[in-house]
Amino acid sequence: MKSPSMAKTVGMVKAYAAQNKDAPLAPMEIRRRELGPSDVSIAIRYCGICHSDLHKARDEWGVTQYPIVPGHEIVGQIEATGSAVGKFKTGDWVGIGCLIDSCLTCQSCKNGQEQHCEKGATYTYNSPDIHLGGMTYGGYSEKIIVDEAFVLRIPKELDPAAAAPLLCAGITIYSPMVRWNVKKGEKVGVAGIGGLGHVAVKIAKALGSHVTAITTSESKAQAARILGADDSLISNDADAMAKNVQTLDVIIDSIPASHDVDALLQLLKRDGVLVLVGLPAEPLQVFAKTLARKSRILTGSQIGGITQTQEMLDFCAAHGIVADVEIIPIQKINEAYARMKKGDVHYRFVIDMASLKESNKKSTAR
Amino acid sequence: MKSPSMAKTVGMVKAYAAQNKDAPLAPMEIRRRELGPSDVSIAIRYCGICHSDLHKARDEWGVTQYPIVPGHEIVGQIEATGSAVGKFKTGDWVGIGCLIDSCLTCQSCKNGQEQHCEKGATYTYNSPDIHLGGMTYGGYSEKIIVDEAFVLRIPKELDPAAAAPLLCAGITIYSPMVRWNVKKGEKVGVAGIGGLGHVAVKIAKALGSHVTAITTSESKAQAARILGADDSLISNDADAMAKNVQTLDVIIDSIPASHDVDALLQLLKRDGVLVLVGLPAEPLQVFAKTLARKSRILTGSQIGGITQTQEMLDFCAAHGIVADVEIIPIQKINEAYARMKKGDVHYRFVIDMASLKESNKKSTAR
Repeated sequence: MKSPSMAKTVGMVKAYAAQNKDAPLAPMEIRRRELGPSDVSIAIRYCGICHSDLHKARDEWGVTQYPIVPGHEIVGQIEATGSAVGKFKTGDWVGIGCLIDSCLTCQSCKNGQEQHCEKGATYTYNSPDIHLGGMTYGGYSEKIIVDEAFVLRIPKELDPAAAAPLLCAGITIYSPMVRWNVKKGEKVGVAGIGGLGHVAVKIAKALGSHVTAITTSESKAQAARILGADDSLISNDADAMAKNVQTLDVIIDSIPASHDVDALLQLLKRDGVLVLVGLPAEPLQVFAKTLARKSRILTGSQIGGITQTQEMLDFCAAHGIVADVEIIPIQKINEAYARMKKGDVHYRFVIDMASLKESNKKSTAR
Repeated sequence: MKSPSMAKTVGMVKAYAAQNKDAPLAPMEIRRRELGPSDVSIAIRYCGICHSDLHKARDEWGVTQYPIVPGHEIVGQIEATGSAVGKFKTGDWVGIGCLIDSCLTCQSCKNGQEQHCEKGATYTYNSPDIHLGGMTYGGYSEKIIVDEAFVLRIPKELDPAAAAPLLCAGITIYSPMVRWNVKKGEKVGVAGIGGLGHVAVKIAKALGSHVTAITTSESKAQAARILGADDSLISNDADAMAKNVQTLDVIIDSIPASHDVDALLQLLKRDGVLVLVGLPAEPLQVFAKTLARKSRILTGSQIGGITQTQEMLDFCAAHGIVADVEIIPIQKINEAYARMKKGDVHYRFVIDMASLKESNKKSTAR
């Protein structure tokens, strides 16, 4: 299986970066590290646009270090392997999600929860770069060099472009569904039908559960039914909400903005679980009695470990699940951000990275 | 074991009631139902004063029906048994907690979770009375008639007066500790050291865990250490709180008023659980990221089922656990409420019901 190293250094590569919170994303050359023994070099073919890319590029969470090259839904092909690489060979279709490094020795890493690494995981972008210093640069770029331990195999059954969003959105949904035992016979609510929510409907259906889409308009409810939802509930219809109190076992709440989570909690049966995956920045208001009266559980979840991410990809391959995507050239990234901000995407933008070569030709020609 | 019925009717009994939300509690005669085949008549010896008694008597939750006779931490002796009663005989020391009836046939009842009865459990006071109509009257009274299925055996090792608060406070603490697997090697936080919290410290220690009392003053922290806490943390000491981020497995949060639950959640390790048992009326503010980053769980719990309540009493007997109580005559009930409201009790008032006879003599003599 081991293939010879094809390149010792990769050096400078083309990318798209934001230089400050107000600047549009624009071409920039970034440096990639030398290929280490356990590293692979990946030619990036597609990169999904996650809502966090926008939050981070615009410094909406107040922690961004500039310049930033976003992108953590990366699909590409191996173009070089380090001398000790065993799992991959040149030409393989592979994926990189939100994580590119962790200690691999702490209890969390040993439990396959590298995202909770006790020494701090390295995220794919805007995270301290332990190799080159500065911050890591993400997938809006030509190439990336990553330790093979953090590289996922993209099953051949999956369309590579439409599989890209699974690397973040897919695992963010799959991990809590496994944790909270979503299965046949369970009633699952999916609140918010966007990038995360549309994948949640598909995965919950594939796990055999009965899915109720919880959304704010009849048109979104209809769209959710097209995705496979069995039922729908309009969250600002007080009568409908009251009728559905205590009907659901699990709710995946993907709403990214402030909302009435207490009203959603009331939809849960005894011992029911609401998992926050949308992560609004504002605090949520919850009544103790809503939780106590029926021993309801409010929790949250972020991505998942590497082994489980591979399990999710294999599960999606077995069930024919990919994201619904709109493919764009990198030159339309700022327009895509603007549309995403308005919720104008069904359901995920994916950048075709072949466009980056074209872009940079123009950029250097200017 | 079966003993003959000693009385067919009990009729009118002495009690203390509030007639409206502003009136002090005062003597009143109430009716008890006839003894049914599976009923026992209990001569009440002691009744604990729970914070909910005060909330309900003063209609702080907006649902009280007057007159109200509070009291759901009842310890007494069997004085008569119905023809079909098998578990108890005259003279037995028994307890009644918050529940006196449920359907016993729904899935929740079959699972031993009568408090979650799908047809609605009957609570010991201010709950629709299925036998006599009107509302049920609680333990601030001479006698009570209850189906033996809802009667607990008070182990002989326990002081009856000090055992009374276990019927509500004890099970409210024990049930979530069992549910969330508190055991040797676990680090447990107890937030709020009052009626519930002081029992939580004792039960968590008896389960073998390392206990940190989380409270607002050094004097309360010292008091908690006297109760058995291994450690303490002053919740408004920001440095101490920051130092203790991610150190606890489970927090039992017994604080009855609005507080910063997000700060407490941050003390939890990955997959840690905070259980709300204090039930403040105001909504609590929680940040989604606090939950998501470490898959933390926020939940709540209220009392427990009958089988588990007996298990708790037997556990307390085996470990010598009772509440720390201050015994009062019923004539001091209004003073006790006033002191409880100021937090001036270590840690639970218990009414000596022998005083009720004296009281009513005076009352009728007036």
